[in-house]
Amino acid sequence: MSTTLAVPNAVQTAVVGARGYAGQELARLLLAHPRLRGLPPVFCGREADSLAAVHPALRGLAPPSALAVHPFSWELLEERAVDTLFLATPHEQSRAWVPEALARGLRVIDLSGAWRLSHHADRAVYGFPDSEAPEAAAVQAQAVYGLPELHRDRIARARLIANPGCYATSIILALKPLTAASTAAGGLLDLACGIIADSKSGVSGAGREPTTTTHFMYAANNLSAYGLWKHRHAGELREQLGLGDAALTFTPHLLPIPRGILSTVYVRFRERTALDAVEACFAAFYQGRRLVRLFPAPELPQIASVERTNFCDLGFSLAPDGQRLILVSCLDNLLKGAASQAVQNWNLMCGWPETEGLL
Amino acid sequence: MSTTLAVPNAVQTAVVGARGYAGQELARLLLAHPRLRGLPPVFCGREADSLAAVHPALRGLAPPSALAVHPFSWELLEERAVDTLFLATPHEQSRAWVPEALARGLRVIDLSGAWRLSHHADRAVYGFPDSEAPEAAAVQAQAVYGLPELHRDRIARARLIANPGCYATSIILALKPLTAASTAAGGLLDLACGIIADSKSGVSGAGREPTTTTHFMYAANNLSAYGLWKHRHAGELREQLGLGDAALTFTPHLLPIPRGILSTVYVRFRERTALDAVEACFAAFYQGRRLVRLFPAPELPQIASVERTNFCDLGFSLAPDGQRLILVSCLDNLLKGAASQAVQNWNLMCGWPETEGLL
Amino acid sequence: MSTTLAVPNAVQTAVVGARGYAGQELARLLLAHPRLRGLPPVFCGREADSLAAVHPALRGLAPPSALAVHPFSWELLEERAVDTLFLATPHEQSRAWVPEALARGLRVIDLSGAWRLSHHADRAVYGFPDSEAPEAAAVQAQAVYGLPELHRDRIARARLIANPGCYATSIILALKPLTAASTAAGGLLDLACGIIADSKSGVSGAGREPTTTTHFMYAANNLSAYGLWKHRHAGELREQLGLGDAALTFTPHLLPIPRGILSTVYVRFRERTALDAVEACFAAFYQGRRLVRLFPAPELPQIASVERTNFCDLGFSLAPDGQRLILVSCLDNLLKGAASQAVQNWNLMCGWPETEGLL
Amino acid sequence: MSTTLAVPNAVQTAVVGARGYAGQELARLLLAHPRLRGLPPVFCGREADSLAAVHPALRGLAPPSALAVHPFSWELLEERAVDTLFLATPHEQSRAWVPEALARGLRVIDLSGAWRLSHHADRAVYGFPDSEAPEAAAVQAQAVYGLPELHRDRIARARLIANPGCYATSIILALKPLTAASTAAGGLLDLACGIIADSKSGVSGAGREPTTTTHFMYAANNLSAYGLWKHRHAGELREQLGLGDAALTFTPHLLPIPRGILSTVYVRFRERTALDAVEACFAAFYQGRRLVRLFPAPELPQIASVERTNFCDLGFSLAPDGQRLILVSCLDNLLKGAASQAVQNWNLMCGWPETEGLL
Repeated sequence: MSTTLAVPNAVQTAVVGARGYAGQELARLLLAHPRLRGLPPVFCGREADSLAAVHPALRGLAPPSALAVHPFSWELLEERAVDTLFLATPHEQSRAWVPEALARGLRVIDLSGAWRLSHHADRAVYGFPDSEAPEAAAVQAQAVYGLPELHRDRIARARLIANPGCYATSIILALKPLTAASTAAGGLLDLACGIIADSKSGVSGAGREPTTTTHFMYAANNLSAYGLWKHRHAGELREQLGLGDAALTFTPHLLPIPRGILSTVYVRFRERTALDAVEACFAAFYQGRRLVRLFPAPELPQIASVERTNFCDLGFSLAPDGQRLILVSCLDNLLKGAASQAVQNWNLMCGWPETEGLL
Repeated sequence: MSTTLAVPNAVQTAVVGARGYAGQELARLLLAHPRLRGLPPVFCGREADSLAAVHPALRGLAPPSALAVHPFSWELLEERAVDTLFLATPHEQSRAWVPEALARGLRVIDLSGAWRLSHHADRAVYGFPDSEAPEAAAVQAQAVYGLPELHRDRIARARLIANPGCYATSIILALKPLTAASTAAGGLLDLACGIIADSKSGVSGAGREPTTTTHFMYAANNLSAYGLWKHRHAGELREQLGLGDAALTFTPHLLPIPRGILSTVYVRFRERTALDAVEACFAAFYQGRRLVRLFPAPELPQIASVERTNFCDLGFSLAPDGQRLILVSCLDNLLKGAASQAVQNWNLMCGWPETEGLL
Repeated sequence: MSTTLAVPNAVQTAVVGARGYAGQELARLLLAHPRLRGLPPVFCGREADSLAAVHPALRGLAPPSALAVHPFSWELLEERAVDTLFLATPHEQSRAWVPEALARGLRVIDLSGAWRLSHHADRAVYGFPDSEAPEAAAVQAQAVYGLPELHRDRIARARLIANPGCYATSIILALKPLTAASTAAGGLLDLACGIIADSKSGVSGAGREPTTTTHFMYAANNLSAYGLWKHRHAGELREQLGLGDAALTFTPHLLPIPRGILSTVYVRFRERTALDAVEACFAAFYQGRRLVRLFPAPELPQIASVERTNFCDLGFSLAPDGQRLILVSCLDNLLKGAASQAVQNWNLMCGWPETEGLL
Repeated sequence: MSTTLAVPNAVQTAVVGARGYAGQELARLLLAHPRLRGLPPVFCGREADSLAAVHPALRGLAPPSALAVHPFSWELLEERAVDTLFLATPHEQSRAWVPEALARGLRVIDLSGAWRLSHHADRAVYGFPDSEAPEAAAVQAQAVYGLPELHRDRIARARLIANPGCYATSIILALKPLTAASTAAGGLLDLACGIIADSKSGVSGAGREPTTTTHFMYAANNLSAYGLWKHRHAGELREQLGLGDAALTFTPHLLPIPRGILSTVYVRFRERTALDAVEACFAAFYQGRRLVRLFPAPELPQIASVERTNFCDLGFSLAPDGQRLILVSCLDNLLKGAASQAVQNWNLMCGWPETEGLL
């Protein structure tokens, strides 16, 4: 136990949905967060339970009382003076609960896809009804897409964070410096040929529910492509990168590993470009952002370099022709792709260093 | 295509339950069986389907019509002149159907546990009712435990084969030469200390149903013990080895691999014994049985040596004290532990070499 | 044992290099090949050994004498009247031995990369010296690239087969119907944007030598891209598909599985194209070729569908815009990507059905 | 960054051998250790290098200078005022260096097997020469076996810690409460029948060197027994448990996973014993020891519960006869089986809570 001064600004958090894989990581990170020493999150679920039973790896990390899961109720949050609510819940539930949470003055960090998409049409993939309540639209307008490397300042002022999708995080972080530069400078990338993001993810991305495709016999020793042209994260990619539908082809694959995403992203430059210029562009964009690590060419990140870390790693390989660039982007889908990004957002909302409890 | 003479004695088989993992292997073996060229099995299930859809790896191995799955009916079997029925069905279903199948003159090879146990008390683990129909008891009396290395002659004359459990096959084949010799010779083994069988199995043993423990996230990178003191195969072990309950401790573990069983079996000799004597005992017992391979010490089999083969491999390691022996027994749970053992039994019932279609 | 007529045209084969993974599969296929019943291949290596020791899974599949590995010598081949030599050897060794083998009247099927490339410049990746012997060039001119679905007739007449690379097979089979049609019809594909082949392979492709990247701790739970812009198979792709260097981007990745390749191939059509037309193009190209299986959209093959099979599976997914097509191509790198393709070539050279011993 | 008071008692550590897997974990733990904020360990190796290059996952966790690996020299340690030396080196090197380190006044925590065994005969497995220098024998006499749950007080006073083997830790922690009670009370266990420890370990236990058995193609999808009757950890088991050679059979197996050990330990009681009594015995023995977690029956630990944690988990399953007990013991071989145990020992040597930096 480190000798820690009393936390000056007391905060109270609650987590709903810690049974899931991202929820488990969120619980682990918050239990060890230096600003929450002595103030563990209030864990809530459908019924009374214990995180020690659900996730044996968490046993002994905190007293049993701190690991208790309480049946969720707004009254409980009020009693415990909770000011920030983490939702690791299905998107339908997040969509339903957030208006009330905001109305009660809570700050919300939602790990689901419920509030990530500005355009109502894009939200169709989540099956939200055509005629949405005006209240929901008003709430949506307040949501900030919680990718701190893009929206740091807006996140710091937000009441509702839509924590990004794991695939989307890996692809947006790989592309944003280039698409941003393209707009600014009138066109670095040759978008006519389109960008291809060939992504591969571990099985935890598919959730805790036992299904045909999460069965060990299906996933082990296998690789399969899925969700072609219709994956839910496509809308986030379009909106955050400002790309039309035809400009980006995104293909997810299911890897026979528990966790980690590697996206191989293919872009074309309009003109012959030097590797130095590419690296400089990324170095400038991510200056001071410690959770994005840039690998100097010819080194490339791999899933092993990010597994169980809070980083997104980026590497670059330029064709001899100087026009074709391959970006390799890696992250742990449960951490920088979910739970540690949520903590990073929360740190910013609280005015702390964004890496607090993460490095 | 080999140049094959017309099959002299036409046989017609049907397989119920080819959706499962053992069923898939059984389908593959029978589709390639030299006695069934041009006479593929009739595959039956709950509803019309195609094995090509269920098991893409089987596509193209036979014409689509041969891979069709037909809704099961006794009439269909009659129409197609089926004489042998393979059941890769849940034990409840096998228990219910076999009396009718026998009454209709069919030979049955049942891969479930329904008919493996002579003693009614042992069958309690399968949840069969206390007051069993006399008809069932009469059928049970005709069932032969289908371990060809033990019961070759009875199998050749049987109408109903109870195909052994996968764990049970691996342990019985490792122990039977010693327990048989012990009885005959008045006591090779020191049974007072008990025998320990520490078994490890791949996930396919748990079946095709998606459950908490067959989820990739549960099984991958993991090892867990389960079913201590109450695994269903314990009854088979007792009955086939003639051991009392206290004489054998059997502990199954779930390995993070798709298929294969390795059993590490610990026995004690009453007196200092030479490795030569042990090897001679096994060589004599398994003489001419090509599907049991004996590894000369100090070589030991491993799961990789038997994966996707029809063999059970046995190896021996004697302590310097000459009293403690470790047997290592390996097989593929879906083959020698299920499907290829079923084919071996069928070969014997038909009077063919037991390895027909297996070597 | 099937009742087989005496083989009419006796053949004698030898295999050098059966210690490796592809060599092991070749040994297994030839030991069970119907034309070689009673005439097992002569296995050769650097020193006397036994396949039973090297590959325990092969034990018992043939008598020990048939599994013996003999020290290689030309005299031995002559003594045993070998007429066809399979080389599963490093490319340097294949390059050195083949001229002598041909001079001695042997037919050769070489699984290495030594003779795959017509253009001397392309061969630079194999480190062959700049000033090659004219003899080697003359031999090279006789080599036929052993992809039966492309070069069936030339293979049937060949004395030297250069068996294709595993990645190359998966990508060429996915693209050839389209590139062939493009040439014929004046341009189906929009090549200006380039084709992208994002390939993922199991670890067996890296060979038997223990290295940093074949270490379990490196490969397990991981995915890594490697060999960007410089993989050896790029030359085969260029030559066989008739594409310029800039037209194809090929990125190999190392999967945490033992075997299997999945290539996700991205192409663009010049004009909006119907899925039907794509499927018809492939159906026509592969008509009668049983080892290529076409999956009807929206079904896609995956590695599990081809693992331990002799097939290459192809599937198609067309973007809603009708211009972007994703092809998914799967095969087992040790089988259709190596050993079973070698047997397929041999079958054609012998005038037998190409699937003899493979289906 | 937590708000931490200046560390009162400054300590300086050095780590030799951080290239290995245990060394990597040790580096990670020490870089984050609260007593070493601002005082990162001095990493040493054969040549100048960077941990960021060797272990990409460590990049960004500390400034590049803190991750530098320096060529080892005693002068460097002196310059940097190092007081504690962690050795994650081969046992030959540890055996050679420790006398000098102690002579120079350093405290040493050695992760190798060099100093674990009191009896010279036991040390034969490490190949140490028969005629050992008297100096080495004198040093050996000072070594304390670093299992804090057994030797807490002696560790606190020690200058040289022999950090236990991973298998040994898992088995000793499972058995010591029973063997200790047996001695005290005149015999809880029936040792005549012997104890069996059937252990299974992930591949990291075999070290970083690429070998035949660490090749992915060997280990994946496989399970193999090895080192029967002669594993190096047998001596530790004998000495720490006070058991004769015949009383314990220890069989290691290689699991197809990166890390984690599960030992299934079989003991017999002299008399019918109640589960409560067993659980009470363990609860008393491990009272206040937070890094040993006891699972209430019928729950059993599994490798997933301890992977990447600093715990050793113990579970119990008693046969219906009350005489046969199965203990399941799990730990992460690189953490409680190596690196975090080293940190635990260091904490005790420094007079800090033993879980400092570990919980």
